[in-house]
Amino acid sequence: MDRSGARVTGFKCVLCDRVYAPGEVTYTCVDCGLEGILDVLYDYDEIAREFSRADLERSIENSHWRYMPLLPIGSEETLPVLRTGWTPLYHAEGVLGLPNLYVKDDSMNPTASLKDRATSVAMARAAEEGVSAVAAASTGNAGCSLAGFAAAQGLPCYIFVPADAPSPKVAQLLVLGATVFAVDGTYGDAFDLASEAIAAFGWYNRSCAVNPYLVEGKKTVALEVCEQLDFEVPDKVFVPVGDGCIMSGVYKGFAEFEKLGFTEKVPELVGVQAEGCDPIREAFDGLCELVPCEADTCADSIACGHPRNWRKAVRGVRASGGRMMAVPDDAILAGMAELARSTGVFGEPAGVTAFAGLAAAVREGSVTPDDTVVVLMTGSGLKDTESAMRAAGEAVPVGRSLEDVERALRDRAEI
Amino acid sequence: MDRSGARVTGFKCVLCDRVYAPGEVTYTCVDCGLEGILDVLYDYDEIAREFSRADLERSIENSHWRYMPLLPIGSEETLPVLRTGWTPLYHAEGVLGLPNLYVKDDSMNPTASLKDRATSVAMARAAEEGVSAVAAASTGNAGCSLAGFAAAQGLPCYIFVPADAPSPKVAQLLVLGATVFAVDGTYGDAFDLASEAIAAFGWYNRSCAVNPYLVEGKKTVALEVCEQLDFEVPDKVFVPVGDGCIMSGVYKGFAEFEKLGFTEKVPELVGVQAEGCDPIREAFDGLCELVPCEADTCADSIACGHPRNWRKAVRGVRASGGRMMAVPDDAILAGMAELARSTGVFGEPAGVTAFAGLAAAVREGSVTPDDTVVVLMTGSGLKDTESAMRAAGEAVPVGRSLEDVERALRDRAEI
Repeated sequence: MDRSGARVTGFKCVLCDRVYAPGEVTYTCVDCGLEGILDVLYDYDEIAREFSRADLERSIENSHWRYMPLLPIGSEETLPVLRTGWTPLYHAEGVLGLPNLYVKDDSMNPTASLKDRATSVAMARAAEEGVSAVAAASTGNAGCSLAGFAAAQGLPCYIFVPADAPSPKVAQLLVLGATVFAVDGTYGDAFDLASEAIAAFGWYNRSCAVNPYLVEGKKTVALEVCEQLDFEVPDKVFVPVGDGCIMSGVYKGFAEFEKLGFTEKVPELVGVQAEGCDPIREAFDGLCELVPCEADTCADSIACGHPRNWRKAVRGVRASGGRMMAVPDDAILAGMAELARSTGVFGEPAGVTAFAGLAAAVREGSVTPDDTVVVLMTGSGLKDTESAMRAAGEAVPVGRSLEDVERALRDRAEI
Repeated sequence: MDRSGARVTGFKCVLCDRVYAPGEVTYTCVDCGLEGILDVLYDYDEIAREFSRADLERSIENSHWRYMPLLPIGSEETLPVLRTGWTPLYHAEGVLGLPNLYVKDDSMNPTASLKDRATSVAMARAAEEGVSAVAAASTGNAGCSLAGFAAAQGLPCYIFVPADAPSPKVAQLLVLGATVFAVDGTYGDAFDLASEAIAAFGWYNRSCAVNPYLVEGKKTVALEVCEQLDFEVPDKVFVPVGDGCIMSGVYKGFAEFEKLGFTEKVPELVGVQAEGCDPIREAFDGLCELVPCEADTCADSIACGHPRNWRKAVRGVRASGGRMMAVPDDAILAGMAELARSTGVFGEPAGVTAFAGLAAAVREGSVTPDDTVVVLMTGSGLKDTESAMRAAGEAVPVGRSLEDVERALRDRAEI
C-alpha cells in the first residue's frame, strides 16, 4: 500500500519490467534512466470490492475525482480546487456520415485542455509530498495547465518552452504567474534543460513522460467515455498523438474498467499524428525503435519530434488491436472548420487532429457507418487563433445600410 | 400558461408596465418600441409547489438545465446539446485580504463565456418556434456563442460585428460557420443594422436587449451561486456591466430564489463598468436617463457606449441596495494578472472587470474582510491574448545551458 493511502501497489518499468514498491522510486526506472518510464500498479481486486458502477451512477461529483478509487491519491484533503474532467461527450449524429459518432470536448477544462487531467493528479501528489515548486517543459498546454494549478495552490512554477512557442500560450503562462524560460532551441532542448534544472533545484517534475502519476490523470478521459456511453464501449476511439502520453492514458483507462468488469472490452485505439511530425506512427508501422524527427506542423501541441512516451503509446495501440495514422496540415485545418461547423466544438489544430484522422479513415473506408466511434478533442481553438483564421475564411465588410447586407447575401446565394 | 408548456404567465414592459399574455408579443413592447424591453413573468406559486431545494440537492444534472422549472422552456426535447452552466464557484480564500471571497468561473462554458447561458435558452425557444436562421449584433462573445449553438443545431447564423472587433473573436465566429458582417461603424451601428436585417429577413433575434428570453438564461448564474453556497446568500456580488443584460439576469435570479423561499435575501449587487465606457454608472449616479458615449476601453466585451438594457440593470442594482462603479483600464489589466496569479482563473479584460472593481472597493474600504463576496468572471482570457500580453510581462530568454537558468533565477532573486 502506498503511504498516501492510495491503492497503489508499486511501479513497473515499461522497458525492463522491473517492479518497484511504493516510495522506492520517484520518476523513472533506476536501471533504464529516462527511457524507463514507469507504470503505476494497483490492487484491482481490492478496488473492485469497494467501487462499483452503481457508485458512479449515484455520484454527484462533477469532476474526474469521481474516479478516486482508481487514482494514486490517498486523501481528499490535497485535491486541487480547479474543476477538472467530467467534460461533455456530444453525440455528433450524422457528422462524417456516421450515425454513432461522439465527440469528447476536453477543451472544457480549467485551462482549456486535456492536460488539466494530468496536472490535477500531479498537483495532488505535489501537495501530499510537500514540494516547494513545480516545473515542466511544454509546447504550451501542459505548461499553461501547470501554471494555472500552481497559481491556485500558491506554488512557484517554472516553465521551459521552445522560443517559437505561440505567443497566446506564452501570454497565458505569464499572466498565471509562471516564470517562463524561452529556450533557444526545439521542444526537445527545452525538455532537456528543464530536466537538468529540475534536478538541480529540487522542483517537482510535471513531465508526463517522467512522472508516472500524470498518465493516471489522463486515463480519466477514457473512464468518462465509458460511463457516458452507459458502459457500452465504442468500437473505435481516435486520439491525437504527440508525446504519446494521452494515448498511454487512454489505453490504461479502458483496460482498467475492463479489468474491474465495468466494461467488456477495450476499443480499437487509433492514434493520429500530424504528417509533419509522426515518429510514433513510423515506429509503430515499422515495428522498430523510435527515430526522432524535426517537427513541421501547425499542430504545435503535438509537434513533438522526440516523443518520450512512445513505448507506452505503441504498446497500448497494439494491445487494443488499433493502429497509428498521420494527416497533413491542410486536413487538420479543414478538420478544425468541419468539426466546429457541424458540432459547435472549436478546437486547436492538435485538438482536432484525431477528427481529421477519422475523416480520412471514413474516406478510405476503414471506418463505416456501422461503427460506433469516439473522437477526443483535446484543446480549445482559442489557443491558436492564427490557425483558426487560416481555417476560417473572411468576414463580409458592409456599410451601415440594409442594401449592403442584401447584396452580400445575394452574392453568397443565401437569399 | 405559455403554449410551450413552460410556466410563463406573460410579459411586462420595463418602461410602461403594460402586461402581455404569452404569444401576444415576440420581442419588445408594442407601445414603447425598442426601449420597452420586456420581463418574463412566471407563476411562482405553481413553481414553488413542484420545485424544491431538495430536488436540487439530489440533482445529477450537470448544467443549468437543473433549473428547468424556472426557465421559459416547455419541453426537454428542444434543449441544445452544448453543455452550459453549472460552472465552478471557487473559494479564493484570502485573495484581496478577504477570507470569504468566491470567484464564479463562467469561462467554463461551451464557447468560453457567460453568454452561452443566454444563447442556450434562446436556441431552445428558436427550436420550439421552428425558426429558419438566427442572428445577432455582437462585440464578440454573444456572437461566438450563437455561432457555436447554431452550428450544433444546424441553423444558419448571421452575426453583425463592428469592423474593429478583435480578430480572435472573429476567427471563432468564422470557424463556427457564421456569416459575419463587419459593419463600418460602432457596436451601436452593428446593432441597428442587425435589427433592420433581422426584421427584413425573418431571422430569430438573439439580442439580449430585445429578446426577453435571454435574460432568463443569464439569471441561472445567480441561481448557481446560491446553490453552491448552500443557499446562504453572500453579502455582495460584483458583476461586470456593458449592455446591462448580465446584471438584469443576476438580479432576477437572486430575486426569484428569494421569492420561492429558497434563500432569505437578495445580495447587494455592485455593477462595474470600464471608466472608458460607463454610461450606466452615470445614469445610476445621476438619477437620470442614459446618455450614450463613445467607448474607449480594452474591455471590449463591455465596451457598449449605447447600452440597451440599462433600465433593467439600474432597477436591479437599486432594488438590491447596491451601487455602480467604474475602473480604469490599467486597473482592469492589473486585475487580470492578480486574479490569474492568485486563483488560476484567466479572464479577458471584461471578464475580470468585476474583480478589478472589487479590488478598488477593498482599497477604499467599502468592502471589508467581514463581507462574503462573490465575483463573476464572465469570459476566458484566451479570447484576448493581446491584453494578456500587456498584463503579463515577458518570458526569460535563455540558451540551452543550466548556467543561463541559474543566472536568470539569481537576477530575479528566486534562488
